Amino acid sequence: MGGTLVGDGAVRITGVNSIRQARQGELTFLSDRRYNQFLDQTRASAVLVTRDIASSTRPIIQVDDPYAAVQAVLKLDDAQPLESGAGIHSTAVVDPSASIADDVSIGPHSVIGSEVEIAKGGVIHAGAYIGAASRIGANALIYPHVTIRERITIGEGCIIHPGAVIGADGFGFSQVDGRHVKIPQAGTVRIGDDVEIGANTAIDRATFGETVIGSGTKVDNFVQIGHNCEIGNHCIICGNAGIAGSTIIADHVVVGAGAGVIGHIEIGAGAMIGGYSGVTRSLRPGEIVFGYPAVEIERSKRMHAALRQLPDALKRLRALEQHIAKPEGDE
Amino acid sequence: MGGTLVGDGAVRITGVNSIRQARQGELTFLSDRRYNQFLDQTRASAVLVTRDIASSTRPIIQVDDPYAAVQAVLKLDDAQPLESGAGIHSTAVVDPSASIADDVSIGPHSVIGSEVEIAKGGVIHAGAYIGAASRIGANALIYPHVTIRERITIGEGCIIHPGAVIGADGFGFSQVDGRHVKIPQAGTVRIGDDVEIGANTAIDRATFGETVIGSGTKVDNFVQIGHNCEIGNHCIICGNAGIAGSTIIADHVVVGAGAGVIGHIEIGAGAMIGGYSGVTRSLRPGEIVFGYPAVEIERSKRMHAALRQLPDALKRLRALEQHIAKPEGDE
Amino acid sequence: MGGTLVGDGAVRITGVNSIRQARQGELTFLSDRRYNQFLDQTRASAVLVTRDIASSTRPIIQVDDPYAAVQAVLKLDDAQPLESGAGIHSTAVVDPSASIADDVSIGPHSVIGSEVEIAKGGVIHAGAYIGAASRIGANALIYPHVTIRERITIGEGCIIHPGAVIGADGFGFSQVDGRHVKIPQAGTVRIGDDVEIGANTAIDRATFGETVIGSGTKVDNFVQIGHNCEIGNHCIICGNAGIAGSTIIADHVVVGAGAGVIGHIEIGAGAMIGGYSGVTRSLRPGEIVFGYPAVEIERSKRMHAALRQLPDALKRLRALEQHIAKPEGDE
Repeated sequence: MGGTLVGDGAVRITGVNSIRQARQGELTFLSDRRYNQFLDQTRASAVLVTRDIASSTRPIIQVDDPYAAVQAVLKLDDAQPLESGAGIHSTAVVDPSASIADDVSIGPHSVIGSEVEIAKGGVIHAGAYIGAASRIGANALIYPHVTIRERITIGEGCIIHPGAVIGADGFGFSQVDGRHVKIPQAGTVRIGDDVEIGANTAIDRATFGETVIGSGTKVDNFVQIGHNCEIGNHCIICGNAGIAGSTIIADHVVVGAGAGVIGHIEIGAGAMIGGYSGVTRSLRPGEIVFGYPAVEIERSKRMHAALRQLPDALKRLRALEQHIAKPEGDE
Repeated sequence: MGGTLVGDGAVRITGVNSIRQARQGELTFLSDRRYNQFLDQTRASAVLVTRDIASSTRPIIQVDDPYAAVQAVLKLDDAQPLESGAGIHSTAVVDPSASIADDVSIGPHSVIGSEVEIAKGGVIHAGAYIGAASRIGANALIYPHVTIRERITIGEGCIIHPGAVIGADGFGFSQVDGRHVKIPQAGTVRIGDDVEIGANTAIDRATFGETVIGSGTKVDNFVQIGHNCEIGNHCIICGNAGIAGSTIIADHVVVGAGAGVIGHIEIGAGAMIGGYSGVTRSLRPGEIVFGYPAVEIERSKRMHAALRQLPDALKRLRALEQHIAKPEGDE
Repeated sequence: MGGTLVGDGAVRITGVNSIRQARQGELTFLSDRRYNQFLDQTRASAVLVTRDIASSTRPIIQVDDPYAAVQAVLKLDDAQPLESGAGIHSTAVVDPSASIADDVSIGPHSVIGSEVEIAKGGVIHAGAYIGAASRIGANALIYPHVTIRERITIGEGCIIHPGAVIGADGFGFSQVDGRHVKIPQAGTVRIGDDVEIGANTAIDRATFGETVIGSGTKVDNFVQIGHNCEIGNHCIICGNAGIAGSTIIADHVVVGAGAGVIGHIEIGAGAMIGGYSGVTRSLRPGEIVFGYPAVEIERSKRMHAALRQLPDALKRLRALEQHIAKPEGDE
């Protein structure tokens, strides 16, 4: 790791843990200054630290990036992977017309529909459902209880966490005489390469054409992506966010946790949407917004700071009014 | 369709798509003025348009309602349905006491409990769970991984999307000596006819009696409906909305995406709740509210417009105070 | 029950229901003054009431706590439980290395991984998935379609509702050249005793070490708990709430519905977070906060009351400015 050891180099390390939870025998790391207080309190037997930390009551290893270093250690350790390479479980129901690469693993009680294609290296866990004519790219990892409906395309190296639903009907109805008549959702979903979809997240299929998630984009748990959205490459969509139908999001956009974005707008490349904000208009590339309706973040901060002063300002306004009504000269 | 063709009537159409995504050979439509700019840019080979659009660089068909027209085309096309009519799959576990109509389809690995009734035309997809003594009306469509717990009633023609949970315990506890003691949730859920329940949505069973979803109501993904709620007919509940326990919602109410409604209140018929709003009091019929706490929408707009002016107003207030403290005459 | 009967004691009771939904022959109760109006309107054949209610048009039973009394009645009634005690269903896939206590029930199509331990009294419903080396404490109740990934610890007496996902990967990525590179999530989740986890809720595994849910804590539906969070004992986390990674919540905290809490902060014991609030800083023990960013609740109320007056206040400010610009003496 190119690190510099300060302290006893003979301690034996049996595991890796966070600085607060680490026990004797474990290695930990300190990369966030907010946790500096824990350096001399941790029960860990050694600590990876940045090079500006000179010493501690326990052995330290000074490195350029403690977090990267601990990740490297974890890869050495190779924490036990989920079972894979097990072939097709005898209880899996695989349609004879499906095309499954030789080394694909398919777990118990999973269901693979007609004409499905699963490319090499795929791991489909227990109880996953892949509907007719869907295509799963190489080295995909599909966790238990995922639902992928019919005619969906999933790129290479995608990870889809438990309970995610890809390709359920978009929420589209016409009003006819006070009733909501279902609009057929005839489109599909296309997910690029190296995409991660969080637990219980839902990505609806398009009414026509495709709902798209671009390559390299990471989607957290409980995210709702409406029908016909097009999300760019290398975006981050945090937990509980919702993107309404037909909105287009360019590359490298960050959507904060719990944020909502209305339908039929465009979010420019590199824009950032604050947590629990609500976006009601298109955003320019690089725009950083906050609040509901979301406005440019510095403006949002000024508005909120002003709101905190408002109860006092109302008293001052009342005092001014009284002063004017009864000027000093009248007293 | 009763449309008027303007342009080459000999083009061959092989599919239907949205105006931005359409490729050569596909039919598209233009019903939303926000997309007018795409009319001459689309790669579609023909465009359904409203009658006020006179011409385009590509063939157009003028109709009264382009969206309705394209829906009609889709029905002609009859996009491949999910597999149905397949009978009961050999891996389904169906309790011998269940009563299943002859033409019902039950997918692989689904589980049908004791005394369950499934009426004619039902399609129960792979891995669905229907608990003891639940009743499923005619022509219901239950997608994979749906959980319907025991003693639930689902009306005719309902569609329940993947991962939805109907009839989990309501969230009810009594505080006893600082501990939360579970209140048995002995009630059930009754869903009317022609209801749609979104992916991963949860509708909790009542503590006593029934949680009710009225006929014709459409519920989007990730909606949480608490125990003992009663939702009327023909409502729209958008994605990520949450309705707390024992609230009563009348007919034709619209709840916007991400909105929250507290428990034990009543929402009048035809009321509309804005997206990401929080309703903390009962609403009169037809009331339209926004914000948190939600207020009448015009008032909410005035409040927000005022908030945008507030940072400047505080400066003006300060200027006035200084002016009064040191009147012009003193200068 | 120690109650005092006022009225006809000969009515025959066939069930229990809420005051608004009760039908003839059913017992109901009145414990919430908001429902007093229904006392003489209910169709119930008898009503449990508090001792201050002297009479009604129907038989009443005066008790100290009508809600507790009706709960006691329900326990007498013992509403049919979910099927249990059925042993291991023939379609369950149980790894031979798993250690399952004799009286455990395992439902159809569930999957139990290698080295899993399930202690006595456990009920694992249909289609549940328990990953390798996870340990389930005595008398746990795991509903259908729950996913518990590998190496998770679940305490005694826990109830996990349908579709919940315990131990999916935390949402952690490093930015490398504009790409998001996955950080291995090598930790796990430890859930204490007597915890309830709501339908479709997701509790992510730690990057290192453990995400912790303390004993006696109750978590509602659709709650997102990020990697490395540590939640104390006897907390209440209401529906749709989200707790971002590495946040520490002490005992007896209440998190309101839809509330969000940022990562890497500490919430003191007994703190209360209002519904749909957003907490952006650590909270002291017992602090009660509301709004976004959440502030002390009385301050939040003053801010909101002031905001309601703001449109009018801006008019008054304008009037003052005009008055000053053109003082009375000039008129």
